[in-house]
Amino acid sequence: MNYPTNFKSNNYNYIYSNRGMGLEDDLNNTNKYYLETDKAVIYKKPTPITINKVDYKSRDNAVIKEAHFKIPSTTDYNGVYKGKYIDFEAKEIQSKTSFPLTNIHPHQIEHLKKITEHGGIGFIIVRFTTLNETYYLSYKNFKEFLDKFSRKSIPIEYFKEKGYLIKDSLRPRIDYLKIVDKELGDLNGK
Amino acid sequence: MNYPTNFKSNNYNYIYSNRGMGLEDDLNNTNKYYLETDKAVIYKKPTPITINKVDYKSRDNAVIKEAHFKIPSTTDYNGVYKGKYIDFEAKEIQSKTSFPLTNIHPHQIEHLKKITEHGGIGFIIVRFTTLNETYYLSYKNFKEFLDKFSRKSIPIEYFKEKGYLIKDSLRPRIDYLKIVDKELGDLNGK
Repeated sequence: MNYPTNFKSNNYNYIYSNRGMGLEDDLNNTNKYYLETDKAVIYKKPTPITINKVDYKSRDNAVIKEAHFKIPSTTDYNGVYKGKYIDFEAKEIQSKTSFPLTNIHPHQIEHLKKITEHGGIGFIIVRFTTLNETYYLSYKNFKEFLDKFSRKSIPIEYFKEKGYLIKDSLRPRIDYLKIVDKELGDLNGK
Repeated sequence: MNYPTNFKSNNYNYIYSNRGMGLEDDLNNTNKYYLETDKAVIYKKPTPITINKVDYKSRDNAVIKEAHFKIPSTTDYNGVYKGKYIDFEAKEIQSKTSFPLTNIHPHQIEHLKKITEHGGIGFIIVRFTTLNETYYLSYKNFKEFLDKFSRKSIPIEYFKEKGYLIKDSLRPRIDYLKIVDKELGDLNGK
């Protein structure tokens, strides 16, 4: 089974998104809050698909009758904050102990590499749903793990040590820009 | 007819994109060139759709059986160049004399406004297909036109005066970052 696990589960989330309160909903809410409070402009990209058949019932009413999900070549979220390009991927997992690397497609890791090389801020957000703990891990530290260890998953301890726990709040739900601020502070401090 | 004209034509382009050589193809090629030569990381976003029905033939083979095109809330292209956030919309039109403003959705204008306020580089690329002339117009000059004139279209003279003609070339086909360089130079010069 070559198909990435996360991709399928994303599609399910997309379709049944009314169930709500998943990481994707929390991030969409957070991004909406950032937009409304004029803090940043960050969006989730649409799900990439290939369209095969379209029924043009009328000039203004086209219905897609056959389409397939595509493997994404980039991450799901990007935008601008304090003039900086922001780019990240977000994943929910069931495991209490580690983050399986099958959740991130190699294209997406390569994409994060490139955007950081071009001066963008790249990271991943991982929620351990069973523990209800959400972590921010910079691309730099993510990459460091991949380079150092030939493991198939990242233990939660690594997130605790090298990443940041993002505490849930009401508004915004997942205040990840607070951590971007820290990273920008570190960059400016050096 | 409230539905934006450009949106429909985009869908047609998307489906029949094998005909090739339209502005979208030229920009995708250009962005691919920028990526390969490590100059910038800029992508076209997937077409936004609402999915209604999915047939899960097997675990690995989901087919979308009913979906609708959504009106985009952002522009089509974004990414990172020299650490800067880049964001633009691209349109092809038949007219030889002016660019009808119905081609750009109000949400997209608002989006370009916001991203420039947050330090991003926002612009539109307009191709007059009959003339085979492609212009770059910064959001700033686009906005200036909207504020000054209550017209329903932007005359080509305004593009010639306030924008830049992007000459076709082989690789990259539409070298719009050359113009972004000029704009960055102007910003740094002041």
